[in-house]
Amino acid sequence: MRIHATRRTVLAGAAAATAVAAAPSVAQATSRNATTAPTAGRGPRVGILLYDGYSLLDPTGPAEILSRLPGATVTMIAERRGPVRTDTGDVAVLADRAIAEVDRLDVLLVPGAGNRGTIGAMENQALLDFIRRVDRHTQFTTSVCTGALVLAAAGLLTAGQRATTYWASAGYLESEFGVVYVPERWVRSGKLVTAAGVSAGLDMSLYLAAELAGDTVAQGIQLAVEYDPRPPFDAGDASQASPELKALALRLLEDSQV
Amino acid sequence: MRIHATRRTVLAGAAAATAVAAAPSVAQATSRNATTAPTAGRGPRVGILLYDGYSLLDPTGPAEILSRLPGATVTMIAERRGPVRTDTGDVAVLADRAIAEVDRLDVLLVPGAGNRGTIGAMENQALLDFIRRVDRHTQFTTSVCTGALVLAAAGLLTAGQRATTYWASAGYLESEFGVVYVPERWVRSGKLVTAAGVSAGLDMSLYLAAELAGDTVAQGIQLAVEYDPRPPFDAGDASQASPELKALALRLLEDSQV
Repeated sequence: MRIHATRRTVLAGAAAATAVAAAPSVAQATSRNATTAPTAGRGPRVGILLYDGYSLLDPTGPAEILSRLPGATVTMIAERRGPVRTDTGDVAVLADRAIAEVDRLDVLLVPGAGNRGTIGAMENQALLDFIRRVDRHTQFTTSVCTGALVLAAAGLLTAGQRATTYWASAGYLESEFGVVYVPERWVRSGKLVTAAGVSAGLDMSLYLAAELAGDTVAQGIQLAVEYDPRPPFDAGDASQASPELKALALRLLEDSQV
Repeated sequence: MRIHATRRTVLAGAAAATAVAAAPSVAQATSRNATTAPTAGRGPRVGILLYDGYSLLDPTGPAEILSRLPGATVTMIAERRGPVRTDTGDVAVLADRAIAEVDRLDVLLVPGAGNRGTIGAMENQALLDFIRRVDRHTQFTTSVCTGALVLAAAGLLTAGQRATTYWASAGYLESEFGVVYVPERWVRSGKLVTAAGVSAGLDMSLYLAAELAGDTVAQGIQLAVEYDPRPPFDAGDASQASPELKALALRLLEDSQV
């Protein structure tokens, strides 16, 4: 068959969007931004810290959302440049920058991992030094899942502060660091924003998008990634889960990890 | 400070999970699986086809979910091995296998992309040949977002079939291929399962997990990734969005892409 894609857009309305761009309603809706025109390099500099054994969705969900912010750059960073493997060993994301090459970020995000990866990051002084150094100048320093434990190990999340983390790590965050666990999708404490487990990074990132570029842009991003979640089950809330389902969830994690 | 992580688990309950594993309630709950014990290589072989300009969450959301299936392997595949960049150019995921190296898969997933990436894939005969070749033996052949257009270009999704795709590509899917667009999070048509835009791959993957390993395992995975979505806005449903918000969404996409 013949594909007409070269002569038209497969995303109907993309051309129309340009025409609509100057309409008052859109201009007004985006007034909290300087502009939504191409501004690569003039929007927020987002850095995501990869380390061996992270969970794939923790960095990639937020990267998908935050990369749509006008002018944003999203950079994957690790101790050294190159591929960094997930907890299951199945997938590697490329770190385009080494920590030594990164000076200033507007947003730093630390993803979570399984036991091995989380403990490794919590004991990696080079990573913790990087987090502390970059945090001095960020607008937001953030985590997903057990990334909160890494922020705590770096001394950024301290006793008495409110935060969230992976449901199964809440007890550890409280007993080890004296942090007050709040079972929300994301929790802001000053410029620290922590998200709950894995998929909660998506919700937190829309919150961050709204803080950085306004509610309307965040809503535009939500529509851009068609984030109208309708999972086939309602089993994602640990506070409603049976002990058996919690045990199964942790066993599935453990068995899938290398 | 001293970290006690090496002497205990940061995921409280992970040890307990092992103890609970043999309890009748869990054994019963997982009876639709042969086993939930470590079975690496004996579970579903999932292959995700990367190509230049894909949207990051399209392959990574499903990879996160499906990699938790007992014994599953998830492999990132591309025309050639090596890093494959997203539509924004910000992030590269490593393809661990070239299409020529992959013979049989239980699940094939084709992600979506922006205009450039989608058109490129629809016109890449090597990719389309691979999709057709692998599809002969899959249990499920699936897509996320505009990946449905690639399946249609490969001739797998044909006139009169029901499918979903990215909201802004629905008209193109219908006019170009005669496919019947169904605005659901995922649509099954025989062994073809298509998901709506970007984030819908998460919902579809939980459906696939249930089909492959039973409802209880899928629910365990949902809890494992704490997928209890609570975005700060309710703007992800295109059928409820204003023309202005749709225009903004498409403009944010276009401006963020390289």
